[in-house]
Amino acid sequence: MREVAVIGVGQSVFGKFPGLSAAQLGGEAVSAALSDCSIPVKKIQVAYAARNYDTNCTAQGILKEVCIRGVEMVNVENACAGGATAFRGVWKEIADGRYDVGIAIGVESMTTSPIAGKLIPPEKSDLEGHLGMTMPAMFAMVATRQMEEHGATVEDFAQVSVKNHHHGCLNPKAQYRKEFTIEEVLNSRMIADPITLLMCCPNTDGAAAAILCSMDVARKYTTMPVRVIASTLLSGDYKYMQEDICVSPVGTKIAKMAYEMAGCDPKDIDLVEMHDAFANEEILRYEDLLFCKRGEGIGLLRSGATTIGGRIPVNPSGGLLSLGHPLSASGVRTICEIVLHLRGQAGARQTPNAKVGLAQMLGGLVTGLEHGAVASVHILAR
Amino acid sequence: MREVAVIGVGQSVFGKFPGLSAAQLGGEAVSAALSDCSIPVKKIQVAYAARNYDTNCTAQGILKEVCIRGVEMVNVENACAGGATAFRGVWKEIADGRYDVGIAIGVESMTTSPIAGKLIPPEKSDLEGHLGMTMPAMFAMVATRQMEEHGATVEDFAQVSVKNHHHGCLNPKAQYRKEFTIEEVLNSRMIADPITLLMCCPNTDGAAAAILCSMDVARKYTTMPVRVIASTLLSGDYKYMQEDICVSPVGTKIAKMAYEMAGCDPKDIDLVEMHDAFANEEILRYEDLLFCKRGEGIGLLRSGATTIGGRIPVNPSGGLLSLGHPLSASGVRTICEIVLHLRGQAGARQTPNAKVGLAQMLGGLVTGLEHGAVASVHILAR
Repeated sequence: MREVAVIGVGQSVFGKFPGLSAAQLGGEAVSAALSDCSIPVKKIQVAYAARNYDTNCTAQGILKEVCIRGVEMVNVENACAGGATAFRGVWKEIADGRYDVGIAIGVESMTTSPIAGKLIPPEKSDLEGHLGMTMPAMFAMVATRQMEEHGATVEDFAQVSVKNHHHGCLNPKAQYRKEFTIEEVLNSRMIADPITLLMCCPNTDGAAAAILCSMDVARKYTTMPVRVIASTLLSGDYKYMQEDICVSPVGTKIAKMAYEMAGCDPKDIDLVEMHDAFANEEILRYEDLLFCKRGEGIGLLRSGATTIGGRIPVNPSGGLLSLGHPLSASGVRTICEIVLHLRGQAGARQTPNAKVGLAQMLGGLVTGLEHGAVASVHILAR
Repeated sequence: MREVAVIGVGQSVFGKFPGLSAAQLGGEAVSAALSDCSIPVKKIQVAYAARNYDTNCTAQGILKEVCIRGVEMVNVENACAGGATAFRGVWKEIADGRYDVGIAIGVESMTTSPIAGKLIPPEKSDLEGHLGMTMPAMFAMVATRQMEEHGATVEDFAQVSVKNHHHGCLNPKAQYRKEFTIEEVLNSRMIADPITLLMCCPNTDGAAAAILCSMDVARKYTTMPVRVIASTLLSGDYKYMQEDICVSPVGTKIAKMAYEMAGCDPKDIDLVEMHDAFANEEILRYEDLLFCKRGEGIGLLRSGATTIGGRIPVNPSGGLLSLGHPLSASGVRTICEIVLHLRGQAGARQTPNAKVGLAQMLGGLVTGLEHGAVASVHILAR
């Protein structure tokens, strides 16, 4: 297997853009990624694009905008890990030597989708959906359990939102750039007790893109290639195999796979971007990713270690909570953020002297399967 | 690159099934494919599933029905070539040595989809969509050109439908098992002059699945492994690069790539399954696939060579016109049909002594890009 580098990253502004199509949002991200490394479009040999809603030749529609066509293109979906699946798809093509240069794109136009964010009837076989098992409902049950088992308080959950909104204020691409207090988070509208509105990620339109290539090619276009030292993707197991709803077995398993592949240890990680769709979720993921023991995520949060300036900043971009969550875009966008920090280009939110970063995604609510139905971890190093 | 074999194939019945979810249709196809080769489910290491509409963890939803979970799963979309993209995805995983056994699934439940087959507004950037450029409109323009340039008649187009409906009568899985006369096809409702209703493929619910593995594994489970000797996938180029709307540049290019990869020649092909979404399209594809020269597809049809019993049967399954076209399922289903013939298990529609078969898919209508926005050819041999 060949070593693979990321040489170009790009992101659209995140927000609500009823006037922009997915192709236009994607085109903005792709153009930014191409400019970032000054690679000619004719060098791109393969493309993977991820999108959850209204998919119809997403990659083809985006890439013709920037004159990339006539190459192999694959469109993927994998819930919130769709973008990570696209990135891994391109990584495989290059690692296995089939192609030398490729682009991974994640995009979502939730505002213009006729179905995204709407209450559509669950499929006939989706028993839990018919019983009202939506994402906020599930995370509310988990939050209650965290309070019972781990000594979490609603203030802890609010603190994750306060932290990530603080980070988002430092990111010009973020959807919401506003500081909130713990009281403001707790007093926002109740969604599913104890989850309030400001503990939920917003619906967002946006796109991100990354250009990957072999190390040979990378050296021609950049003096700062970022190496992909682990790429993993795995689907979940049955819920009844899950002893504790505060634990994601697939999230833990995939973290171990990624550390083994990268030949590194949780303590080697300098910063993390992860799936904080709900504020309480971030705390659990500290544990899945082995930054602390089970039940000790609350302590890690309270210590300030995961805030910018702390030992291991988590979601310095602002995370899904503040930056926004255009579903399939997030898996690519988190990797782009890691790349910026490893290059020392993350501006006011820069992690000092970052050498190794981790991007995690987890998602999918499939009847009978643990959440996530799909999980991914990528580890990158400068 | 390792040699890859198909050892199990399965298909659901095709038709309109408002009571069945995509997961149930997919489960039926997967169960059939597993039974076909008696491989234990715990041997499946990777899965790719294709679906055009309402995608949300399609593979995860289908496979938990048959106790496959906790492995890498990727969901893909690529218009009518989605199923072929899923098959190629699994082929790559095994050819490149990442996994030894995988399953490719294509599924569509168009009846239960809130958007499939409905007239939904085109995206803002889809200029041709706003002007009424739908699939039947485009193929009607092509048909008119075929009549002008190639001497085709409406009776020729009707004959493709008569032929494929005749084939479909021999296939117990077909949606429509009824013989039609040329007059009946011509007198059916006009859709887009000269395309009548019986020259259009129907909206269909259905699924297909194929189990792929390395040759080492194949020998443990079957005495009749079918080898994948070519796998190709490519997206289209700009329409203005297309001198003639009767020619698919990507369709021709990918055919040449596939023959080169397989080390064979059009005359080595014993049978073909292809994208006959509209009756006149099949004639053009004879030419794209180099079974005859440009403009001579009409002659090949009239000679009877492409009817069962002829020199090179095309769409012995009944094709999309009679068997039905559950969009993403078709790309896997066509490959399954080839496998049955190569094994001598195609019943009344068997191609005698078939040694090499070709499965083609072409699809996608993306503003500014030729049709297809995506094309795929697989060649299989016993």
